[in-house]
Amino acid sequence: MHPRPGFADTPEPPYYAVIFTSQRSEVDEGYSQTAQRMVELASAQPGFLGMESARDDQGLGITVSYWSSLEAIAGWKAQLEHLAAQAAGRQRWYDHYAVRISRVERAYAFDARR
Amino acid sequence: MHPRPGFADTPEPPYYAVIFTSQRSEVDEGYSQTAQRMVELASAQPGFLGMESARDDQGLGITVSYWSSLEAIAGWKAQLEHLAAQAAGRQRWYDHYAVRISRVERAYAFDARR
Repeated sequence: MHPRPGFADTPEPPYYAVIFTSQRSEVDEGYSQTAQRMVELASAQPGFLGMESARDDQGLGITVSYWSSLEAIAGWKAQLEHLAAQAAGRQRWYDHYAVRISRVERAYAFDARR
Repeated sequence: MHPRPGFADTPEPPYYAVIFTSQRSEVDEGYSQTAQRMVELASAQPGFLGMESARDDQGLGITVSYWSSLEAIAGWKAQLEHLAAQAAGRQRWYDHYAVRISRVERAYAFDARR
């Protein structure tokens, strides 16, 4: 849908969205490297459709990743290096997070240039 | 699910999520007042369950609002003052946005304090 920076170029619905809302802790060590590595790894997973992410200056962030199926999401959750990153996230990098798995039913967009 | 600041205290699924990803323009006039007013108005709409929002220092933001039904989402989209704000958003405040309407099937959370 979007060739714009920061926007995921997703296909027509239906597809799936994992909404990851998180509050970062004060521990920075290793975070940005691991976050970058997880983007690379997720992008290479079967069924990955795209990702959008924003974090404010208070450390509250929302990352939405898009997937072709629930099986693709389960595959990503169980990926070995990702499992290790999830554990490190709980131990060090996040005070709090919520994960919601949803099925995208409808989508539309606006572009001021068009 | 969350009494934590910035996190929506949503019920058990199923419910609906509107994922609004946006790139702000360079026009600030009126934006923050209108954004704040829309949060107040949405919160008073029938079927509103909560909202989470983050915007980074490049102006890329993700706001997810949670609703009890597709009818509740349609009611909010058609709310008169919100319609005017949507038009102003397209004219002034956003270079680009994407809206995805999804049905939350599963949800879980982590809290480092527990």
